[in-house]
Amino acid sequence: MASAIGERARAVNPATERGRGRGGLKQERALRTRAQVLGAAAQAFADKGFPAVTMLDVAELTGMTKGAVYFHYPNKEALALAVTEEFYHRIARLGDEVLGLELSPLDAVTELMTRTAVAFRDDLVVQAGARLQIESTLIATDLPRPYVGYTELVTTWLAQAAEIGELPATARPEAIARVLISAFFGAQHISWVLDNRSDIAERVQEILTTVLPTGRSAA
Amino acid sequence: MASAIGERARAVNPATERGRGRGGLKQERALRTRAQVLGAAAQAFADKGFPAVTMLDVAELTGMTKGAVYFHYPNKEALALAVTEEFYHRIARLGDEVLGLELSPLDAVTELMTRTAVAFRDDLVVQAGARLQIESTLIATDLPRPYVGYTELVTTWLAQAAEIGELPATARPEAIARVLISAFFGAQHISWVLDNRSDIAERVQEILTTVLPTGRSAA
Repeated sequence: MASAIGERARAVNPATERGRGRGGLKQERALRTRAQVLGAAAQAFADKGFPAVTMLDVAELTGMTKGAVYFHYPNKEALALAVTEEFYHRIARLGDEVLGLELSPLDAVTELMTRTAVAFRDDLVVQAGARLQIESTLIATDLPRPYVGYTELVTTWLAQAAEIGELPATARPEAIARVLISAFFGAQHISWVLDNRSDIAERVQEILTTVLPTGRSAA
Repeated sequence: MASAIGERARAVNPATERGRGRGGLKQERALRTRAQVLGAAAQAFADKGFPAVTMLDVAELTGMTKGAVYFHYPNKEALALAVTEEFYHRIARLGDEVLGLELSPLDAVTELMTRTAVAFRDDLVVQAGARLQIESTLIATDLPRPYVGYTELVTTWLAQAAEIGELPATARPEAIARVLISAFFGAQHISWVLDNRSDIAERVQEILTTVLPTGRSAA
């Protein structure tokens, strides 16, 4: 996790491209620290929710001083924004990974949603991002809008599935994509409230089997 | 709304059964006030979310003193609990109303979910309850668990639908009910974040058409 965040920060900071001199090492240390702060913030937001988290909580989780945390992020809103952006980055990366597998369109949808379920269950940054999204009206900064790119990707696959006969020609890809993603979002939330997401993978399989008319396309 | 809350409060308060003397009128006024406070709390919670609401906000919305609000509810947690209970009460009442219509099982499911969508869009107590449920981890009191009774009712109808051939005999009522309710919950939340729930009725129709294999039962 730390390295992924580090790589991302490096990509937007041209200073790190200057080589491995004394300044380069210093930069790397700064990026590592920044990633550590972000990881601690994710843990705090996932556990306690935005309103209850303080900058001191985050500092204590990293073992740094409050000043060190403030050096990287001026306030709690900046931390929430950074965690949310990393959340969307990871969800988008799942899409890229599944695209790379070159599965059939319906298998791709199934694989993406299964991987997303696992991420919601196991990845602290994703859990924090989902919670921050839900708490976004309590956060005095604009967070990215949810689920737009993800819905587009699933819609594209479903349209391809309809084209090649994996779905009935009458299927409406956009509607199915919206329903799948609504159901995913609802299931992960209900599963979180009732059971700390322990059954999320099972719930998502159930959604896929119920919503996708697999096997019906040939009928 | 006020009268519904009043009736409910009366039902649990035997003192109001003592007749219409001077004490009875006083009691009625107290119940009306209590209902007013609850309505104001619903508005505040729906608009600002639990963490941002103060007892003073609620007092100002009713035009009462803070002391008058505290007389009815000792703290913000008590108000949140009362609003959440009223939210569940209203959702349960939708179920009773639809049962009274004696529709076919699948039509009953459709009617209940459509009415629920309208309530989420138009009823401040329902909006507040949904938001409090989402914020429940931020509230230092136990709220009722979500969606359990509602899921049971929908499951019963779907099982009846399978029995009389409105659904394929292979349909799994419990799975379909869970998916429908997850999708409803997700759709109302996404619709709230993106668009203040203006398209919730349309989204719920889409869920019903996509998930319920209507017309396929005969195939």
